[in-house]
Formats: sequence, structure tokens, C-alpha cells
Amino acid sequence: MKFEITILGCGSATPTLRRHATAQYVNARERYFLIDCAEGTQLQLRRYKAHVQRLHAIFISHLHGDHYLGLMGLLSTMHLLGRKKALKLCGPPGLIEILDVHWKMGKTTIGFPIDFHPLEKGKSELLYEDSQVFVRSFPLKHRIDCWGFRVEEQPLKRKVIKEAVDAHQVPVAWMKRIVDGEDYINPTGHTIPNNKLTRPPRPPKAYAFCSDTAYDERIIDHVKNVNLLYHEATFADAMQYRAKETFHSTAREAARIAKSAEVDQLVIGHYSARYRTTDLLVNEARQEFPATTGAEDGMTFTL
Amino acid sequence: MKFEITILGCGSATPTLRRHATAQYVNARERYFLIDCAEGTQLQLRRYKAHVQRLHAIFISHLHGDHYLGLMGLLSTMHLLGRKKALKLCGPPGLIEILDVHWKMGKTTIGFPIDFHPLEKGKSELLYEDSQVFVRSFPLKHRIDCWGFRVEEQPLKRKVIKEAVDAHQVPVAWMKRIVDGEDYINPTGHTIPNNKLTRPPRPPKAYAFCSDTAYDERIIDHVKNVNLLYHEATFADAMQYRAKETFHSTAREAARIAKSAEVDQLVIGHYSARYRTTDLLVNEARQEFPATTGAEDGMTFTL
Repeated sequence: MKFEITILGCGSATPTLRRHATAQYVNARERYFLIDCAEGTQLQLRRYKAHVQRLHAIFISHLHGDHYLGLMGLLSTMHLLGRKKALKLCGPPGLIEILDVHWKMGKTTIGFPIDFHPLEKGKSELLYEDSQVFVRSFPLKHRIDCWGFRVEEQPLKRKVIKEAVDAHQVPVAWMKRIVDGEDYINPTGHTIPNNKLTRPPRPPKAYAFCSDTAYDERIIDHVKNVNLLYHEATFADAMQYRAKETFHSTAREAARIAKSAEVDQLVIGHYSARYRTTDLLVNEARQEFPATTGAEDGMTFTL
Repeated sequence: MKFEITILGCGSATPTLRRHATAQYVNARERYFLIDCAEGTQLQLRRYKAHVQRLHAIFISHLHGDHYLGLMGLLSTMHLLGRKKALKLCGPPGLIEILDVHWKMGKTTIGFPIDFHPLEKGKSELLYEDSQVFVRSFPLKHRIDCWGFRVEEQPLKRKVIKEAVDAHQVPVAWMKRIVDGEDYINPTGHTIPNNKLTRPPRPPKAYAFCSDTAYDERIIDHVKNVNLLYHEATFADAMQYRAKETFHSTAREAARIAKSAEVDQLVIGHYSARYRTTDLLVNEARQEFPATTGAEDGMTFTL
């Protein structure tokens, strides 16, 4: 099953015709998530053929407009197109107040339940969990309260070694216990250790998203060892002072987090509109962490 | 000087990749207005090279999302790009409450004055006036309070007949009074009637915008004789019942308003997403009022 992240927008505060502001669509083992929802996200979801009505949850990192202003329109469209299925929505506590004032003024009702979870300041929380995946929040360091998200597969079952299971004539009724790691005790009372019957599964895949944040080493633990890390990189080295003032990161700082967290791959984004191409940012990041890609709208990363 | 209307979005509640929701950019004698501001309007303004930072006023017809959800992002972008000049904003009273909650949650300040005028329920008001143009509101009939807008040139000065002015040796100092319609009294005390010296100007041009409304003959007076009338036409004849239920109009009803108001040209829009092309809607409207055009995103109408 797939684990894919599609970049719906990689720009920052002022969108341009080439770069929408932040939004990402995640298909993690057929669990469909939206992370951030800038203005225009509903059209970007349509453009990249996302399963809008099947979204399981939306996660909003913080209440700057370039990360959530598309949410009102998206929820309205989901309603108008007939959604009935409940939607989990996780975001800063003030988000629900914003939605309520829009609905009140427009005398609008949304025809499906929204299960709102207010993110807890400074905390890492388990936000979503089912048999396939789970999602956790973690705090970032921005001008207002802001959170990152980590989407991760559940640990996989051990892989059966077919020849060994056949050789030991393991009954079907035992198979669930075997893939769960139990040793097999045969009818003569003899124990076959599990590692003769199964192989360890591949490690679970994980994706972490760090929207707007200053360089902050406390992030490292939360994104440790992920297959793919998205980290904002608003500025190049020359604008380091500006990154500091605005609680953003440089591309090099993003790469340092990636390196310290020993991730497989880094993707940077949230570029200031002053950078017409990403070359400078990507080059500076690669000096610290070679496996860096510069996001562009519409790119899909497969883990 | 120009009087132009650019359609930034002609769709209705659910935007599609071909049709944005409602927004129009008006350049009336170098007064720049935005009428409605659906999600994505800031990019549409950019796409069609509008003078965003020079906007004099924004008029919002009502508080359904497809008419205003782009406003928060647009104001933020104007601020981030350095606007200092005051902006007039006219809309339903609740609009300012919506903006305030966004700014409060994002700890955002907008660095230019916003002169907010809350539209008065059921009233027609003068919203904007200067030496070149004026703008009036008028009430429409929708599920929630909703207004249309009429943008009109100030009456023009009379046209000087150069040969007559020369023949009568009218001094320069008299010219302002002459174009204002005064008769000329020459040094010998003889009166030259103004209509020997000037010709009447062309009539002032006017544009009227009727966003969401049921068929309502009270609109006719407010849009009387305009050069161009935009009137919503959400449905075709076959969906008349649905127009009634939702307080919208059919294309034929829009055309009846145009005919009764004796306008020069009608442009219809706000099509339901069920109409992939506008042929049916335009054809039904033309049966009542032949000078009908179906709006498409990016069309410009010159008066």
C-alpha cells in the first residue's frame, strides 16, 4: 500500500502564480490526510486528483493565513458535494472560533460531523490512530503557537517464511499468533522459535512535517529517523537575520535538523517569494545534508 | 479614460478548475474597485494584471463564502507588499467581525487603514464618490442579506465647439463657466447662449452588479439604463423550482430584468457547476434579451 505525500503549495505568506501557500496531501496506507490548507487548496486538491470526500483528517499547524485560509471553502465544498462522513480536524484552539463566526454570519450549516481536537500548547499528542497509521503533533517555535505533525505506519507484522511453516506443518489456526511473534509449539510439545518461522518486517515508514519554525533542536527527537522530513526553509544564508526576526529557518538550518535527526530524505519549502528559483536554497541545504529536494507545487514523494 | 470590468470568477458555490467563484475588477476612470472577493481572488487579480495596491474600494455583496473568502488573504498580501494607503471596504455588518477574529487569532496587524462601511439592510446608499465616479448599493433578495452595486461616471462637462469659441473670442478665464453650461456675455454686453458654444456631453456610463438574488422586479429601478448589467443566472429554465428554493435566478429571469431596465448589454454568470458550458443559459436569456453574453473567467467588458 502507498505512502505518498503531494505538495499542494510550497510558497510562503504571499502566494504567486507559480507557488501556492502551504498545503500537503498525504495518502498513508489509504488513510487520506490534509496538512495545512492555504487559500486555494480545494482547487489544488482537485488539480492533483486527491480523494477529497474520503479525507480522514485535516491537521492545521497554526493560524497564519497562509496555512489555513482555504479551510472554510474546502469544508463548504465537501458539504455541498454531499459529504456525510465525520471528519477529524486538529488545529490551534482558536480555529473553531474562526469557523463558527463564518458559519454564523453566512447562516451556514455543515452537513457532516466535525470532530475538532484543539492542539495543546507546547505538547506532543497522539491525534489519530487506527490499524494502519498514527499521527502525532509536536511543538515548533514560531511567532504564534505552531505545531508539526508526524505520520507513521503501525509496526508491521513479521513476514512468514513459507518453507519453514510448511516444513513444521504449522496449522492455519496458529498463523495469527506466529505473525505476532509467538513461538510455535507442535503436537509433540516441541517448541519452534518464532525466528525460524518468520523474518522481521521492514521498519514502519514515517513522514514528518515542520511548518513555520525557527531553528530549534528540540524538534530533532520528534522527527528522528523518518523516511522523509519536510522542513520549512524560508530564507537563504544571507537572510539569516531575517529568519531570526520572523521565527523562520534558513535552508541550511533545515538541513542541520535533517542531519541530526538522521532522516533519509529532506524536502524544503515555504520559500520567501523573493527566491524565483530554489537553486540557492537547495544548494545551501545540500552542503549540510546532500539528500535534499526543493519542493515544487504538484510534486509527489513516495516513501 | 477607461471604464472596464474584468470577470475574475463566474462560477458559483463550488469553484472548479475552469471557473473561480465570484469576483470582479472594475477600472472606472482610473478608480479601481473590487466587487466580491471569492477564495483565490488575489491570484486572479495577479493573473489579469490588476492594480492591486491601487484599489480604492472593495465591495462585498453578502457573507456566503463564494463571495468573500479571498478577502482575508488579499488584505494580508496588500499589507505584506507594503500598502499604506487607506482602503474603503463596504460589506455586510458581520464582515468586520469575521476579519477581526482572523487578525486576533493570527496576532496580525494590517499596516494600512481600513475604512469599513457596514451596508444598511434593505437600503440603497451612496458608498463612494469623487470627481470621476460614484458607487451606490441596492438591496437584492437572497437567503441572507445581500446587496448589488452600481458604479457610475459623474455627469461629464459639456463639449466646447472650438470654432464657435474662437469666432466669439471667448477669453480663457471664461472657459470653466462655459463648460459648466453658462451663457457667455461678451465685452459689448451681448449674450451668446451656451448651446452655440458647446455641445451636450455623452451620457455618463454605468455598470450594475447583481450577485445572488431571486427574481425581484424591485431591482429594475436600481439598474435602469446602465450600459452593462451583470446579473446572476445560476440555473436554466428546467431548474426554475431550484432557483426559487435557493433564492437564485434563472438566465431567463436575469434577461427579463435587463429588458425591463432597458440596459444596453447583459452579462450573466454565477452558473451552477452542473452547466459545463454556458450555451443553454445564454440561449434561454437571449430569447428575452438578445444582447446577452455569458461570462467566462478573464473576460473584460469595455463600456
